[in-house]
Amino acid sequence: MSRSIIVASNRGPITFERGPDGAPAARRGSGGLVTALSGALQEAEGVWVAAAMTEGDREMAIASRGGRIQHDEGDIAFRLRYLDIPPEVYDGYYNGISNGLLWFAYHYLWDTVRSPTFGADVAPVWESYVDVNRRFAQALAEEGDREGGDTAFLIQDYHLALVPRLLRELVPDALICHFSHTSMAGPTYQRMMPAQVHDQILRGMLGADVLGFHSPMWAENFLLAARQLPGVRVDLARSRILVDGRLVAVRIHPISVDARAMREAAATQRVRTLRRGLNRWRNNNRLIVRVDRLELTKNIVRGFQAYELFLRRNPDWIERVRFLALLSPSRVELPEYREYTEACVAEAARINDELGRPGWSPIELRAKDDYEGALAAYGLYDVLFVNPVIDGMNLVAMEGPLLNRRRGVLVLSRNAGAFGRLGRYALGVNPFDLDEMSAAIGEALEMPVDERTRRARGLSRLVLANPPARWVGGQLEDLERALRRRPVS
Amino acid sequence: MSRSIIVASNRGPITFERGPDGAPAARRGSGGLVTALSGALQEAEGVWVAAAMTEGDREMAIASRGGRIQHDEGDIAFRLRYLDIPPEVYDGYYNGISNGLLWFAYHYLWDTVRSPTFGADVAPVWESYVDVNRRFAQALAEEGDREGGDTAFLIQDYHLALVPRLLRELVPDALICHFSHTSMAGPTYQRMMPAQVHDQILRGMLGADVLGFHSPMWAENFLLAARQLPGVRVDLARSRILVDGRLVAVRIHPISVDARAMREAAATQRVRTLRRGLNRWRNNNRLIVRVDRLELTKNIVRGFQAYELFLRRNPDWIERVRFLALLSPSRVELPEYREYTEACVAEAARINDELGRPGWSPIELRAKDDYEGALAAYGLYDVLFVNPVIDGMNLVAMEGPLLNRRRGVLVLSRNAGAFGRLGRYALGVNPFDLDEMSAAIGEALEMPVDERTRRARGLSRLVLANPPARWVGGQLEDLERALRRRPVS
Repeated sequence: MSRSIIVASNRGPITFERGPDGAPAARRGSGGLVTALSGALQEAEGVWVAAAMTEGDREMAIASRGGRIQHDEGDIAFRLRYLDIPPEVYDGYYNGISNGLLWFAYHYLWDTVRSPTFGADVAPVWESYVDVNRRFAQALAEEGDREGGDTAFLIQDYHLALVPRLLRELVPDALICHFSHTSMAGPTYQRMMPAQVHDQILRGMLGADVLGFHSPMWAENFLLAARQLPGVRVDLARSRILVDGRLVAVRIHPISVDARAMREAAATQRVRTLRRGLNRWRNNNRLIVRVDRLELTKNIVRGFQAYELFLRRNPDWIERVRFLALLSPSRVELPEYREYTEACVAEAARINDELGRPGWSPIELRAKDDYEGALAAYGLYDVLFVNPVIDGMNLVAMEGPLLNRRRGVLVLSRNAGAFGRLGRYALGVNPFDLDEMSAAIGEALEMPVDERTRRARGLSRLVLANPPARWVGGQLEDLERALRRRPVS
Repeated sequence: MSRSIIVASNRGPITFERGPDGAPAARRGSGGLVTALSGALQEAEGVWVAAAMTEGDREMAIASRGGRIQHDEGDIAFRLRYLDIPPEVYDGYYNGISNGLLWFAYHYLWDTVRSPTFGADVAPVWESYVDVNRRFAQALAEEGDREGGDTAFLIQDYHLALVPRLLRELVPDALICHFSHTSMAGPTYQRMMPAQVHDQILRGMLGADVLGFHSPMWAENFLLAARQLPGVRVDLARSRILVDGRLVAVRIHPISVDARAMREAAATQRVRTLRRGLNRWRNNNRLIVRVDRLELTKNIVRGFQAYELFLRRNPDWIERVRFLALLSPSRVELPEYREYTEACVAEAARINDELGRPGWSPIELRAKDDYEGALAAYGLYDVLFVNPVIDGMNLVAMEGPLLNRRRGVLVLSRNAGAFGRLGRYALGVNPFDLDEMSAAIGEALEMPVDERTRRARGLSRLVLANPPARWVGGQLEDLERALRRRPVS
C-alpha cells in the first residue's frame, strides 16, 4: 500500500528526559501498541502525533517549532510531533475527563448510590478535553496536508474520542480509524455521564470511518449506546452505523503482544539473575503470580480474598504455595487510586497475619514499577491469576503464557477482552465470585500435567499466531474497504 | 373472556393482623398493582397466591389447611392462598437473593471496586430462593388444577423469577405471563451475578409465554441479557425469544395508578386537615415536594445537593422556597439501607445548618410512613421532584399530577420507567448531574403559568387515559396471542 499513516495517541512511543549531561536522552515505550504502530509507521514512513509528557518532550516540541521531531533508534526511524499543552489544560483533559470520568463510565466503576456526582466542576475540565482534542485534530490535519492527502489516520483510545469528528470537519474526506483499548459500558450505564459529554463523545467517535474494539462485548455495547442518539441508525446485524449520510463500520481487532521483543527482553542477564533469585525464594512452594497496575479495575483485593478462601478450605496447601503479587503504581494523582493501593496492602497484611507461619507467608506483595521482575516471574509461575472486574483486553494474560516454562495454568476473568481470544485454554472465572475463583485456584494447582501442557501450548500458539502487525493490518484493510463503500462524489 | 386468572406475588393484597380483641383484622394494600389485579380477579373469579407476611397471615394460612382464604371487603370478594414459609427460608429468599442480590443487579447499585463479593454465603440463600419459588409453582399448579385448567397465570416480579419455568415443568401447556416491576440491567452488568444465579434466573423467566416490563429500556436489556444464554435465540426486532422450541414474547405494559381510588383517598377529612396544616406551614414559600421510600435507588442525597446548588446560585430564592421530603423507611433489615437513611438525614441537616435563616429552613425531612401526608402534599406542590438513579416505573410521578391543584411542575429522572410515558410533559434530568437538576429546579420555579398549565394538564390526561385495568388487559391479550401462535399438537 502506498498510503501514508498518521497515528495519534495521548502518549507517544518515545519519552525524552534530560540526562545528567544536560542532553535529552530518549526512552522507548514497550508494549504491543508501540511495537505494532512503530512497525507500521516504519513501513509507511508515517508520523506519530502525541502530547508532550515530560520536560524533555516539551523542549523537543518547542525546538521543533510545531514541526516534526526526527529520532532514530537502532534500525527504526521515528517521526514524531509532540504537542506542547499547558499543564492545567492537560490536567483537565487527562485526570478530569479521560481518567476521572470516561474510564469510570466504560469500566462500570461507579458506586452509583454515592458517586458520580457531577457539579459545576465538570464544565471547565470538559472545556480542557475539547481543547486538547481540537489541538490534536488541528495537528493531524496539518500533518495530513504535508503528506499530500493520501493518508490513513489511526487515532487511539478514549483520550481522543472527539478527534475523529473534529478532524472530519477540517478534512471532510479523511480516512479515519479510531481504536478503543478500553471496555465499553452498555447504554443504560453510559447515560450516567452528563448528557452533553455522553452525546459529544459518541458523536465524536462517529466521525471515524472505522471504530475498532478488542472484543465483541465492547463493540456491541458501543453499537447499543450509539443507538440512543437521535438521527443515528444502527445496523446491529452488520455492525455498522449510518450517521450524517456516512457509514461507520464497527470492527473487532484484538491486539496481541510482540513475542520476539518479549522473548529478547526476558533473555537478558538481568532477568536471568532475577529469575534465579525468585526461584530460590519460592523454595519448594508452588507459585501463583499476578502482574498488574494498581488499578481499580484489576480486582486485587478480591483476588487475595479468593486465595484466602482457597487456603481456608484446603489447609493442606498451607506452606506449599505462595502468591506473588507484582503491582506497579498507577494514577496516583487520583485519590481513589491511592485509597485502593492502601486497601490492597492492608488486605494482604491481614491475610498474612491470620494464615502465615514462621518462615512462610501466603502473600508476597511488591508495589513498584518492575517490568524485569515481571518477566522473571512469568517464567516461573504454576498459576497466572488474571481476574479484572472488567478489562478492555489484558496483555498480562498473553505475556505470561509466552514466557512461562512450567506449563502454568491461566485463571482468567470472563470480563477481560482477552477471554474472547484465550478463553478456551484458560480457567474462566466471574471476578466477583470468591467461591468460583477459589475453586479455580484449586483446579489449577491440582491439574494433571497432560491437561496443563495442552492448555499452555494452546495459549502460546494463539498469542504467536496474532502478531501485532496483524492488528494494524486489519484496521488498514477495514479503511480501504470503507473507502470503496463511499459514494462516488 | 372465560379464562380464570391466578395471580402470584410475594406480598398479597390483604394483610391480616390480630386485633386487640384477638380476632384477625384485614388491611388492604394500596397501589396500582393491587387495584389492577384485584379488579381482574373479581371479574374472573380468580385466586391470588402470596407468601404469608404476618402472624395473622400465617394463622389464616394454617387455618385454611393449604386451601383458599375467602375474604370479602366491600363489594370485592378476595380468594387468597397464603403460603406459610419458615422464617429462615423466607429471609434467604427475600433479603438474601431478592433484595440483596437481584435488586442490586437490576438497579446498577453495586460499588463494583468493593462490592459485590460473593462467597460461601450465596449457596444457602440461593437454596432458599429456589425453595420458595418451588412452593409457589406447586401451589399455582394445584390452584390451576382446581380451576379446571383453563387458566392464565400472572406472576409478579423478581421475587418469583424461577416460577415460570418451575410451573411449566409441572404444567407443560400452562399459559404464563411474568411481569417485572423493576428496571433491568444490560448483559455486561447482569453477568456480575454468580454464574449459576445469572443463568437460572434468566432461564426461569423464559419459562413464561409473555414477559412484561414497564419500559422499552428494561425490555431491551432483558432481551440482550437472554442472548448470552447458549441455545437461546433472540429476535430483537420482533422482541421475542426462541427457547426449548417455545416462543417467548417480550412486551411493554406501563402500569398506572387508580385515579378514582386516589382521589377518594385524598378527599377524606383527615387529608383535608393535613393539607390545611401544610399550607399554613409553607406560608408564602413556594413548595418543592419529594415522596419516596428511603431506598438506595431514590437518589435523595443528590436531590438535596442539587437543591443546595440551586440556592447557592440563586440566593434570591432563600426564604422564598421550601423543600419538603416525605420519606418512608424501607428494608431496614439491610445495613446499606440504614446507612443510607443516616446519610440522607445528615445531608439535610448540613444544608439546613449552612443555608438556614432564623425561622426558615431550606429542607424539611419527615422520615415516617405517612401516605395521607403524601396525599396532602401532592395537592400543594409547585415542583414535584422525582430523581431516582434508576427506577422500574415510579408511581409518585403519576400520583402527584393527578392530585396537584397548583399546576405544579414535574422534574423527572430520565432513568425512571415513567419517563417513557410522561417525559414530554416533564423536565427531564440526569440524576447524577447536580448542574442539570439544579437548573431544572430553577426552570420549574420560574416557568410561566401557561406552560405550567399545559404540562400539568398533559400529565394528568396521560395518567387518566391509562387505568390499571388496561395494564392487566394488555397482558391477557398478549397471552391469548401467544396461545394462538403455539404449534397445534
